[in-house]
Amino acid sequence: MRAPIRVLVIGFGKMGTAIARLVSEKPGLELVGICARHDSPGSVALQPELGCRLGSDLDVLAEATHPEVAIQATCSRLADVLDDVETLLGHGVHVISIAEEMAWPAASSPERADRLDALARANGVGVLGTGINPGFVLDLLVVALTGVCAHVESIRAERVNDLSPYGPSVLRAQGVGLTPEAFGKGLETGSVVGHYGFPQSIGMIAKTLGWEIERIEETREPILSRQRRETELVTVEPGCAAGCLHTAVAYCQGRPVIRLVHPQQVHPHLEGVQTGDLIEIEGSPDLRLEGRPEIPGGRATAALAVNMIPRLLAAEPGLKSMADLPVPAAMLGDVRGLLEQQSGGKGG
Amino acid sequence: MRAPIRVLVIGFGKMGTAIARLVSEKPGLELVGICARHDSPGSVALQPELGCRLGSDLDVLAEATHPEVAIQATCSRLADVLDDVETLLGHGVHVISIAEEMAWPAASSPERADRLDALARANGVGVLGTGINPGFVLDLLVVALTGVCAHVESIRAERVNDLSPYGPSVLRAQGVGLTPEAFGKGLETGSVVGHYGFPQSIGMIAKTLGWEIERIEETREPILSRQRRETELVTVEPGCAAGCLHTAVAYCQGRPVIRLVHPQQVHPHLEGVQTGDLIEIEGSPDLRLEGRPEIPGGRATAALAVNMIPRLLAAEPGLKSMADLPVPAAMLGDVRGLLEQQSGGKGG
Repeated sequence: MRAPIRVLVIGFGKMGTAIARLVSEKPGLELVGICARHDSPGSVALQPELGCRLGSDLDVLAEATHPEVAIQATCSRLADVLDDVETLLGHGVHVISIAEEMAWPAASSPERADRLDALARANGVGVLGTGINPGFVLDLLVVALTGVCAHVESIRAERVNDLSPYGPSVLRAQGVGLTPEAFGKGLETGSVVGHYGFPQSIGMIAKTLGWEIERIEETREPILSRQRRETELVTVEPGCAAGCLHTAVAYCQGRPVIRLVHPQQVHPHLEGVQTGDLIEIEGSPDLRLEGRPEIPGGRATAALAVNMIPRLLAAEPGLKSMADLPVPAAMLGDVRGLLEQQSGGKGG
Repeated sequence: MRAPIRVLVIGFGKMGTAIARLVSEKPGLELVGICARHDSPGSVALQPELGCRLGSDLDVLAEATHPEVAIQATCSRLADVLDDVETLLGHGVHVISIAEEMAWPAASSPERADRLDALARANGVGVLGTGINPGFVLDLLVVALTGVCAHVESIRAERVNDLSPYGPSVLRAQGVGLTPEAFGKGLETGSVVGHYGFPQSIGMIAKTLGWEIERIEETREPILSRQRRETELVTVEPGCAAGCLHTAVAYCQGRPVIRLVHPQQVHPHLEGVQTGDLIEIEGSPDLRLEGRPEIPGGRATAALAVNMIPRLLAAEPGLKSMADLPVPAAMLGDVRGLLEQQSGGKGG
């Protein structure tokens, strides 16, 4: 059997830590290092337990630990992850990123996406963006469902989630706790952004199905709470924003063909809102699929990042999206076994 | 742009006809022939409309029409499809089969699966089994959902469908209309078989996740109707079987890890039974996904067979399962565009 797959994790926040723990638990994976750029009290405490190398210089760490694949969990924007991703590709390391804009990089910059693809190919490795959303619920699962359709008229998908488990940067980006005025101002200044990922999900769906999208309309509005909502990190007073209702509609030949709806708030149950994931397809046939409560985002994203390792390693080099690779699957056995054989119903 | 993809359809029953029509409608696909072995009044009527070649000798037809891919829609069993599939592979033709046992051939015969794989590789083409079930609802969708899990304890999936649109061979195999005694006798003699596909779905799930299955227990019992149910093809008297409740449980290390439940009957709504697809995963996290009514089987299988064409053509040669290839997607544009580029969020 081949040696364990050496995995480097970049980022030591909530997501990086969850991913590092999961990597260290999986047979066939070896956590060889964690790159934490910023002061992170958690990293110092956790590092002896995980028994891997800790460093703040990615170049040095990659050189020292010889990872086969790196999982990047530091930020959301393509522009902010490119340096790290390119450094890793340059070291011949496969890269899986949970940065939202990496789920479909061309949505931010076709030129940068092309450059990533060329760099990955030149180094004989793959690079993939994944996560619960974008990357799974509002795009991959939608695409897969259309696979049973002869024709599709339009798609509507909605994810109603609970932001309570999330950290301060997510809560800020959703305007949680703000007065309506402050929320409006936050939208203007860019401190309130809503969901990162609609152009990415729409890009993946439209490209895979063959729709040419001429424009995307996005709207963001505060979800005003009628009562007080408290979490460890934030308090929402009555009349203030419990979160952000963000919607995107994509048009093809003047017709709205994709509508994605993502109201994110803390403690939605306090006002009787049931969380869940819903996909509705108008086509031949019509389809409707739903899950309640919603797939928990943080845990699912950590699992997806780890579970996609064998898929990316088995693929041709280059920039990949979730729609380019076989579906993710929980890894319940030794990962190395999965890589030693293709299955195809051959048994093996 | 490349020339249209030449498609041959084998089988001219209900499924073959639906597939041939769909192929003829899709930009970038060209229906070049239909192979109908048996007398088929439909084929003679439809052939001028579709404008393709009709024949009963597959070898001659493949030689004459030079298909790039063939879709086989004739029967359920691996043993019954092998001759045709091997003939096609020998002609260097990619093969997509909707035979249930082709969804995971190793479940019927690991040796035959290996032989198919070797033959496909030797001829530089791919061979794939697909369909709504096995092939999608109770296996591919289950696998994809586990992708958001760090761990999985057990899986339960259920498909409650309506057999009313199906043809006589399906109704017979489910014992529709039989007295309880005749149903029991049918199970003994093998004329009542229930669902084809549980060992295939279980094989795909278990292999992809990494569970070693030591045994599968299947049970089949009549769904006894309390009232009269009539379709165009069959009448179910009160006290007789409206269909078959077929269940399979797969064990790993003595523990039941996969439970698949598939009650199939005509007109379930007459007794207040709501049809639907349901997947429940006990794991980290727990998941539940459902769709009501069920995805319509016949239409979905025809769509899947056609929609998987670009996926199979873009893959490495060999025997593939749905879990080995990128997810299916409705083809709403010209198929050739999809094949000319990989996407990967590169735009293009």
